[in-house]
Amino acid sequence: MPWTATRWSDLCASSSSLRFVDANLRGVGQVLFQDHPLSGALFLAALAWGTVAADVPHVAIGGVTALVAATATARVLRADATLLATGRYGYNGILTGLALSYYLGPGLPSLTCSAFGGVLTAIAMLGPADAARPWSVPAHTYPFVLTVWIMMLAAQGFDAFPDGLRSTNDAVALDPAISNPMQVGDFLLGAFHSVSQIFFKSDAVSALLILAGLAVGSLAAAAFAAVGAVVAILAAHAFGVESELITDGVQGFSPVLAAVAFGTVFHRPSVGVAAYAVLAALFTVVVHWAFAIALAPLGLPPLSAPFDLAAWMMFRLRR
Amino acid sequence: MPWTATRWSDLCASSSSLRFVDANLRGVGQVLFQDHPLSGALFLAALAWGTVAADVPHVAIGGVTALVAATATARVLRADATLLATGRYGYNGILTGLALSYYLGPGLPSLTCSAFGGVLTAIAMLGPADAARPWSVPAHTYPFVLTVWIMMLAAQGFDAFPDGLRSTNDAVALDPAISNPMQVGDFLLGAFHSVSQIFFKSDAVSALLILAGLAVGSLAAAAFAAVGAVVAILAAHAFGVESELITDGVQGFSPVLAAVAFGTVFHRPSVGVAAYAVLAALFTVVVHWAFAIALAPLGLPPLSAPFDLAAWMMFRLRR
Amino acid sequence: MPWTATRWSDLCASSSSLRFVDANLRGVGQVLFQDHPLSGALFLAALAWGTVAADVPHVAIGGVTALVAATATARVLRADATLLATGRYGYNGILTGLALSYYLGPGLPSLTCSAFGGVLTAIAMLGPADAARPWSVPAHTYPFVLTVWIMMLAAQGFDAFPDGLRSTNDAVALDPAISNPMQVGDFLLGAFHSVSQIFFKSDAVSALLILAGLAVGSLAAAAFAAVGAVVAILAAHAFGVESELITDGVQGFSPVLAAVAFGTVFHRPSVGVAAYAVLAALFTVVVHWAFAIALAPLGLPPLSAPFDLAAWMMFRLRR
Repeated sequence: MPWTATRWSDLCASSSSLRFVDANLRGVGQVLFQDHPLSGALFLAALAWGTVAADVPHVAIGGVTALVAATATARVLRADATLLATGRYGYNGILTGLALSYYLGPGLPSLTCSAFGGVLTAIAMLGPADAARPWSVPAHTYPFVLTVWIMMLAAQGFDAFPDGLRSTNDAVALDPAISNPMQVGDFLLGAFHSVSQIFFKSDAVSALLILAGLAVGSLAAAAFAAVGAVVAILAAHAFGVESELITDGVQGFSPVLAAVAFGTVFHRPSVGVAAYAVLAALFTVVVHWAFAIALAPLGLPPLSAPFDLAAWMMFRLRR
Repeated sequence: MPWTATRWSDLCASSSSLRFVDANLRGVGQVLFQDHPLSGALFLAALAWGTVAADVPHVAIGGVTALVAATATARVLRADATLLATGRYGYNGILTGLALSYYLGPGLPSLTCSAFGGVLTAIAMLGPADAARPWSVPAHTYPFVLTVWIMMLAAQGFDAFPDGLRSTNDAVALDPAISNPMQVGDFLLGAFHSVSQIFFKSDAVSALLILAGLAVGSLAAAAFAAVGAVVAILAAHAFGVESELITDGVQGFSPVLAAVAFGTVFHRPSVGVAAYAVLAALFTVVVHWAFAIALAPLGLPPLSAPFDLAAWMMFRLRR
Repeated sequence: MPWTATRWSDLCASSSSLRFVDANLRGVGQVLFQDHPLSGALFLAALAWGTVAADVPHVAIGGVTALVAATATARVLRADATLLATGRYGYNGILTGLALSYYLGPGLPSLTCSAFGGVLTAIAMLGPADAARPWSVPAHTYPFVLTVWIMMLAAQGFDAFPDGLRSTNDAVALDPAISNPMQVGDFLLGAFHSVSQIFFKSDAVSALLILAGLAVGSLAAAAFAAVGAVVAILAAHAFGVESELITDGVQGFSPVLAAVAFGTVFHRPSVGVAAYAVLAALFTVVVHWAFAIALAPLGLPPLSAPFDLAAWMMFRLRR
């Protein structure tokens, strides 16, 4: 462990407040499975860069608010101390805050919803975290997905919310041979954006900061994130899906999570595991479009539900 | 234990038929978590009053038929004797009979469906009651909700059923500042109806009988039912939902269940538990509107699914 | 055990390739719960006859391709050897291949999808097979249903797939007293087709071969399949559903599975079990129409999801 890391550990050991900051940073890191405060800090930098560049700082503010609300809730409700310290109660919180402030826009009602959503995700993590322990089946991002879906649906009937709280996710079929020759530039942009969309932004600099954060925690994780992004672009292109949705990276979000999870978290990296991770990423692309089609009439985005479903269907118990 | 209660217990101990009646009464009581025959009797009185006042006695008849069918099914299939005696196999039955006879109208086909539905709910309770024992996670009202949804959906394609077997649950947004000033009278009516809608009626006298039945079993339960009803009205009003749906009490059904369950059943009452119960009731209002929006295209009502989902997401294992 | 069966067992014991063939044949048999290679061979004969008679041999080819892909995947991933040898990783594969090649039509893309689907079902079986072992709750056909639904939904947005990858399952209500007098001939055809539709064909000869395959494994299973088919026709007729859908047998698929499963697999046959199996078949008819109505807007067929839901709701743990 380098000197700064040891120093940070020592500081945390002596201060409850710093331990809280550390748990929050690890909560950001856990969005991509990294139990490491520096990963979290780099992901936060990616988020800050992306939201400032797109002039939507309220998205980052909503995300951090929900993250802190989630971690604080877990502490108040006396969640498992080890899980709490590793950020396991935070990652659903920040994702929920990002999504709600992204769809609700700036303002106090939006910020309140983000905080409320963060509290709910921490509560929702407590039950499964305890109940599923015998199988060690992870809860993944289901608290984030369910909370955001519920709040987006309800808001469609609430006058207190803007009309716009509906996502559009039309999967428009295009003939790839004619209208979408897939330039190298588009390909690279799509791959970078698939990584950065995990924090709700299409931004190459953010993607590089995220890959750096992953590399801090695990070089293999950074490599598998890149593999997942490439698989997502190639698969969508081969299936003939409309190209703008690909280059925005929206459909690469879940496949990147799947590649990192199956390649480095559920199992130790190996050739067989790498093949399995590629298969998981490929299946996750298919599941993404299935969710996009099925949810379109309800005005809901798939979020990371495709990752959750693929991870659950392809999960193998360790013996 | 007062003299009459002791006398009733003695009578039940000596007669299999009276034990069956007792299990049915407790089954009605369990709709609101009360393992007490007098609670059940008062809830039945509330149901009788409400249906006679609204001139729909067949709703009460369908409910009781399904209740008896459910309890008898559990006995024939040799369900756990302790759970059976506490009415755990009955509450889904009466709710199913009430819903089906409410939506199907009077007549023998309707009564047959109610009885069939009652049988199914008891069967559906047997599996989870056995499978979930290690976690003591309750099945809640999922057998009721699933059975009624399945039968309402199927009936849309059956000529043997009337055209009307579709619910409408439009969540119409109104500007609360202009069109819905929320008079004190509306507020009180909405709160009472939120309690009485648990037995499918908008009736203040029924609500008082239900609160009395709750108080017999647990004063805290009666208090939390009132709290849940008030939270439901205030929250819906703040969110700007159309006022008639609020004063009918339809959207207060699940929040009342959530307040009673989180305030008095899952945990012992305390200040912290009360705060948690209010949060659960508030979240249940949001979940209700989410279900109402999502189910509208299928013509299905949310029933108590919002309570089930909120209770499941916010459930905490006891250690 | 007759001489040929003993001879086959001896051959399998001495050859890894023949054991693989045996596991595949049993995989076909497991579609109807028969752990017997001759049942599987007769089911394959029924499939071959039905697809050749209807001039759609690619459906049989797609089914067998997916079956082999699923069994091979389970072997490569070192699935439980006992479950593998009894065909438990194959039945979802062949069903998936039949469905995908039926909806996708002939050609290499279709065959590739069938093989990919087969691989996925075997993977999806590994998790539940391990996780559910404490309860011995079967996974039923959920891997088949989920995989086909996901791929059919996704294909609606993919240009690489034909436009036709949508099912129509309108449940048209007809007045049975007037327009559908239910001739004896229609009744018998409907019952036979309810059996043969398990392998996606309306063909009486296929049905007889399937019943023969069942009888090889268990005479009671063949009898309960016939009972399930008759219950499905009578119930649909009584409910007033449009007659062509009945005589095609599409809605009898799941009830036949339910009757065989509840009559002979979950419990030993007896009078009480037979009554329970008839109730299960009846409920499965209702669930089929509920799914047909609910899935129609998404263009998805119910497949065997009605069987899975009914089997799960009515399942009773053995003590």
